[in-house]
Amino acid sequence: MSQHDSIRAVEWKDNHLVLLDQRKLPHNEQYVQLYSAEDTAEAIRNMVVRGAPAIGIAAAYAAAMAARKCYKQYPQDWRKRLSAEIDILQNSRPTAVNLMWALKRMCDLADTVEGDPEEPLLALAQQIHQDDINANYRMGELGSALIQPSHAVLTHCNTGSLATGGYGTALGVIRSAYSNGQIEHVYADETRPWWQGSRLTAWELVKDKIPAHLLCDGAAAHLMKQGKVSWVIVGSDRIAANGDVANKIGTYSLAVNARYHGVKFMVVAPTSTIDLATLSGDAIPIEERSQEEVLNVANQRIAAYHTQAWNPAFDVTPAALVDALVTEKGVILNPDAAKIAALMAA
Amino acid sequence: MSQHDSIRAVEWKDNHLVLLDQRKLPHNEQYVQLYSAEDTAEAIRNMVVRGAPAIGIAAAYAAAMAARKCYKQYPQDWRKRLSAEIDILQNSRPTAVNLMWALKRMCDLADTVEGDPEEPLLALAQQIHQDDINANYRMGELGSALIQPSHAVLTHCNTGSLATGGYGTALGVIRSAYSNGQIEHVYADETRPWWQGSRLTAWELVKDKIPAHLLCDGAAAHLMKQGKVSWVIVGSDRIAANGDVANKIGTYSLAVNARYHGVKFMVVAPTSTIDLATLSGDAIPIEERSQEEVLNVANQRIAAYHTQAWNPAFDVTPAALVDALVTEKGVILNPDAAKIAALMAA
Repeated sequence: MSQHDSIRAVEWKDNHLVLLDQRKLPHNEQYVQLYSAEDTAEAIRNMVVRGAPAIGIAAAYAAAMAARKCYKQYPQDWRKRLSAEIDILQNSRPTAVNLMWALKRMCDLADTVEGDPEEPLLALAQQIHQDDINANYRMGELGSALIQPSHAVLTHCNTGSLATGGYGTALGVIRSAYSNGQIEHVYADETRPWWQGSRLTAWELVKDKIPAHLLCDGAAAHLMKQGKVSWVIVGSDRIAANGDVANKIGTYSLAVNARYHGVKFMVVAPTSTIDLATLSGDAIPIEERSQEEVLNVANQRIAAYHTQAWNPAFDVTPAALVDALVTEKGVILNPDAAKIAALMAA
Repeated sequence: MSQHDSIRAVEWKDNHLVLLDQRKLPHNEQYVQLYSAEDTAEAIRNMVVRGAPAIGIAAAYAAAMAARKCYKQYPQDWRKRLSAEIDILQNSRPTAVNLMWALKRMCDLADTVEGDPEEPLLALAQQIHQDDINANYRMGELGSALIQPSHAVLTHCNTGSLATGGYGTALGVIRSAYSNGQIEHVYADETRPWWQGSRLTAWELVKDKIPAHLLCDGAAAHLMKQGKVSWVIVGSDRIAANGDVANKIGTYSLAVNARYHGVKFMVVAPTSTIDLATLSGDAIPIEERSQEEVLNVANQRIAAYHTQAWNPAFDVTPAALVDALVTEKGVILNPDAAKIAALMAA
């Protein structure tokens, strides 16, 4: 690992999946040991693990564990049993498409494998994991090459080692840009309501000794107005065939403000995030999470009692507001359906 | 008081100032009794009382208390002593101009009053307080008249009874619009980092039985994109001579997004908020508050240790993004320097 890459949140150990519990960060580095698909689905739903690529990787390992169990318990009937467990995994988070993508690859292999599926499925999960890390390094190179030397960039949510197999998507690009001396500083939105910026991104930046300031999501426009950042760099949970980008709530507001202020807007995501079956952002299901995430903080009630909250977890940024889409297969400037189709076919 | 007006946060009782402690809301309705200007300045600095008009009113009462004390202790020299106490009040919050406006009125009277200043200065403070309430009711009428019947409006920060002498500026308009049946629903940003939306606005709306949803500041653009709100309605801490508006951090982002989405943007503030001596928003001092407000929540550390935060408390929205400025003296559409000068001269 390079100097600015010191964290792994998803690991396969001996015969099970180990996840760094992201609900406990930044103060407790606690690991959860998982031995089944059901428990992994629960961990995904409860955000023990989060970030579209990391969810996909965790689900792939969970599918391998499910195949092992099903084959041992029901050697004749294991594919049908496996399919039920895959369904549970698939439904654990609705917006991210990497989950569906990884599970489809696992299912496709399960459909054709002969004899005990454990070894080949585990090997594929490990391949998916390693491919993601490699993709992130590649995106780090490609994305940082777009950045003219400048003081700082702004990011939203957590897209780092914690959100991926390792290194990160948007935060991977930022790691690369900082390592290369192209930027001196990072601004990170705190990212309400789940505090991915405060709890996770800030923790990664401190661990990797990258100078940064945290700011409230509402302060980003004021930051841009002062000319302090040259790029907004974010990840994605699903990219539609036309280039519309679903990402953590608050991203769309940044994209509108970036365009207004002449700040460039970069989306960094592996091609597993691109869903050609989703024609536009309108077709992306937006997860609405519990009101309690907005009404309570750190187990304390913040909002007045009897208050209701509206808590969409994601929003959609239209392709027209994206200056650069960075994938491991290459960069698309001003993405549209034709450019995305060409990239995916390449 | 009307049906949707049931709260008073600043009151004069017998011989002292009583403030509802806004740091303790929404769970504890605790009152602070203040007998001196120093203690009132401290209360303003620590946000026991907040909101530009309420700060001005509290400072006016504090000036009356200071005059009483100075005259009793130093009958020959009281004006000089008073001036030192006024300075402390003046420096308690830098961005809001209502504070300076109210103190200037108190000083002007103190300069000319003969004999014991207690009674006339207290009478003026009470007049400033009552004028503010009257102004809010007038702005409620004028602002709500601009709103075509629609489902809902969006507001940011707290601009209600808690932020003013009573009824509110932006929230006063919303109260009026709801009372008149022009809107059915309110969306309120939680307003990081101080949670004025979650803790204060939601509390006022619940108290007054106005249906509302709280949302994270980052979700406002997604709300506007869905066409759920017709107006963004906010208050102000200082309006420059050219119509630029300083208000709670996050306001500017809403204004940019409102314009992008064809949502109208209304600023509601008494003329005491308009500072003709400040030519444009660039000249408005923006208070930066402690990093701790971003790093900690409810006395718990949220952000990773060794993280730094940038915490501007206000931002400036250029006049060009304001569709309507509502004051007690009248409404200005698309405000600019000439229209504001004309209004102030009227």
